[in-house]
Amino acid sequence: MKIDGTHYRSIWRDGDGTVKIIDQRWLPHELRIVSLESRTAFADAIRDMWVRGAPLIGATAAYGVAVQMVADPSDDALTETWRVLHETRPTAINLRWALDEMDRLLRPLPLEARAGAAFARAAEICDEDVETNRRIGQHGLEIIRAIAAKKGGGRVNVLTHCNAGWLATVDWGTATSPIYHAAEAGIDVHVFVDETRPRNQGAQLTAWEMNHHGVSHDLIVDNAGGHLMQHGEVDLCIVGTDRTTAQGDVCNKIGTYLKALAAQANGVPFYVALPSPTIDWTVTDGVREIPIEERAQDEVTRVQGRLPDGKIGWVQISPDGTPARNPAFDVTPAALVTGLITERGVAQASAAGLAALFPEKA
Amino acid sequence: MKIDGTHYRSIWRDGDGTVKIIDQRWLPHELRIVSLESRTAFADAIRDMWVRGAPLIGATAAYGVAVQMVADPSDDALTETWRVLHETRPTAINLRWALDEMDRLLRPLPLEARAGAAFARAAEICDEDVETNRRIGQHGLEIIRAIAAKKGGGRVNVLTHCNAGWLATVDWGTATSPIYHAAEAGIDVHVFVDETRPRNQGAQLTAWEMNHHGVSHDLIVDNAGGHLMQHGEVDLCIVGTDRTTAQGDVCNKIGTYLKALAAQANGVPFYVALPSPTIDWTVTDGVREIPIEERAQDEVTRVQGRLPDGKIGWVQISPDGTPARNPAFDVTPAALVTGLITERGVAQASAAGLAALFPEKA
Repeated sequence: MKIDGTHYRSIWRDGDGTVKIIDQRWLPHELRIVSLESRTAFADAIRDMWVRGAPLIGATAAYGVAVQMVADPSDDALTETWRVLHETRPTAINLRWALDEMDRLLRPLPLEARAGAAFARAAEICDEDVETNRRIGQHGLEIIRAIAAKKGGGRVNVLTHCNAGWLATVDWGTATSPIYHAAEAGIDVHVFVDETRPRNQGAQLTAWEMNHHGVSHDLIVDNAGGHLMQHGEVDLCIVGTDRTTAQGDVCNKIGTYLKALAAQANGVPFYVALPSPTIDWTVTDGVREIPIEERAQDEVTRVQGRLPDGKIGWVQISPDGTPARNPAFDVTPAALVTGLITERGVAQASAAGLAALFPEKA
Repeated sequence: MKIDGTHYRSIWRDGDGTVKIIDQRWLPHELRIVSLESRTAFADAIRDMWVRGAPLIGATAAYGVAVQMVADPSDDALTETWRVLHETRPTAINLRWALDEMDRLLRPLPLEARAGAAFARAAEICDEDVETNRRIGQHGLEIIRAIAAKKGGGRVNVLTHCNAGWLATVDWGTATSPIYHAAEAGIDVHVFVDETRPRNQGAQLTAWEMNHHGVSHDLIVDNAGGHLMQHGEVDLCIVGTDRTTAQGDVCNKIGTYLKALAAQANGVPFYVALPSPTIDWTVTDGVREIPIEERAQDEVTRVQGRLPDGKIGWVQISPDGTPARNPAFDVTPAALVTGLITERGVAQASAAGLAALFPEKA
């Protein structure tokens, strides 16, 4: 999407052949674009979260393999690259998928053909992600368009949680794709951005995206959405998801569930946008079956941001030694979800709804 | 309550006659006790939130009048003190009540009797607040005791939002009073403390109270409570309120409503603790009738805390120029409230329930 009028992807190959990314650790305070020129640099970028979001991690890994194939296209280098990049974030399913895909493609090829094929496939992986998200956006656009029509062309207010934006993908984002499509279609769309404690991805990334693409928005604390919905200030919610079950339960960033409850209580449609590979067909009951990661306590007791002197730092908000609990995700039961916006269309959040759209999987 | 084993109130008259308070601006990072020795100091303390919470503001104003009566017990001084202290927080109903009460009592008295009578009445106002909160605690204790019995003496997990603690009153607090009573009764009680963005009163004040009194607790982000309730980790919620309507709707710190929705969805009892003067008998439908204050945007875009160098400061969490909405309170409809814990007992959150307990008001 756009940064102050210029179109960017979150990863791209430059004119001179180098792979560039936005080093997201400096957002929202600084836009730093860096070239990744060695396997070590790619490993650092993934491990230390210069890039984040499943699709972008996969795309970055694919380009990491390609860059290594220029330096050394041997079988040993291929094996070692898989290992080095995989161990940067061993639980990221998309990372493993991209590494397996590159290995499967490259290993049968002669050494001199590997680098070229690798760059071509990495570019394709990026394009496939963009196309998936574009379709999600088009299906979501129809929902927003219908609400705008019902409001006689008036402003459509969308609440979102966390960052399921273009920075987490190669472009468009998932939850943000319908929003960007609506803005491009000339619909008067306004976004309420949940700050999304503890890591503040909403305040740091989604607000930055909206700011620089030029979409009307307001940052709100996570506590405020219920009140806004109660007073008719939210027309729909759209969030992303890390994992959706076969019956349509949605695992997403902690706090999503509270917004879904408020949406239901106030008759606000609650949509989840997702590429179909994030559907886990082996899991049914998300609340019972999905284990929730508990992260470090200091994410709760401290807040990171820009210090008055311009440096990135943190403040401690609680007394020394305060214990904290930090569940990172929660599960929104399907009954609270109005619809799942996928690249194939909008599915009802139910086993039947998903099976109708993905008959080959169900 | 206790600070590391020693009993404190939030305001008291010392052996040498000076009025002391805890300067709450430095909490949770530092315990600073200061003497308030002039009308100006009292005005600063109320205006600049060295003290906060309706009951404590009232008590502080009463002592402010008393201290001024020593310096100058004239009618003019009485009038001027009312004016100077009232304008520090002109919308605080309890402040006005305390100032009116002192004026009503002192004006008919001879000058030489005024200081003594003022100190006596200020002490009484404090004691009355403590007694009200003690009764709230005893009624709330019965609720916790019943849950403990049902759990065979197992741990009772209480979730609370914001700070309706002893620091907001003279002692005991409102929402915390049942918790302190339960701890003193030997019940194994554990508190989940919502951090309560944007001002983090939970992380800064409630966590500090629990920490220093010695009550088991965990700080959580405001997003986490729904997940914990969904997984049976919360046995009841107790929150405070700024204003309760005649039909039992509860206006409290922003985010309270989201927790009440999660409590209802998961069968968790949701109680509100309040001294009866905070019931506004002139208002019925809280959602429609109570105007919600929108506060400064930088409370949302920044977070205050202790910097790594030990100083109190803030970090900016969003891009420069990000607009924010900051509604400070929300209304929880009576239908989501299990009961209202008052000094007279536990009322059903309904017009009939409140009328039964307060027949002279309804």
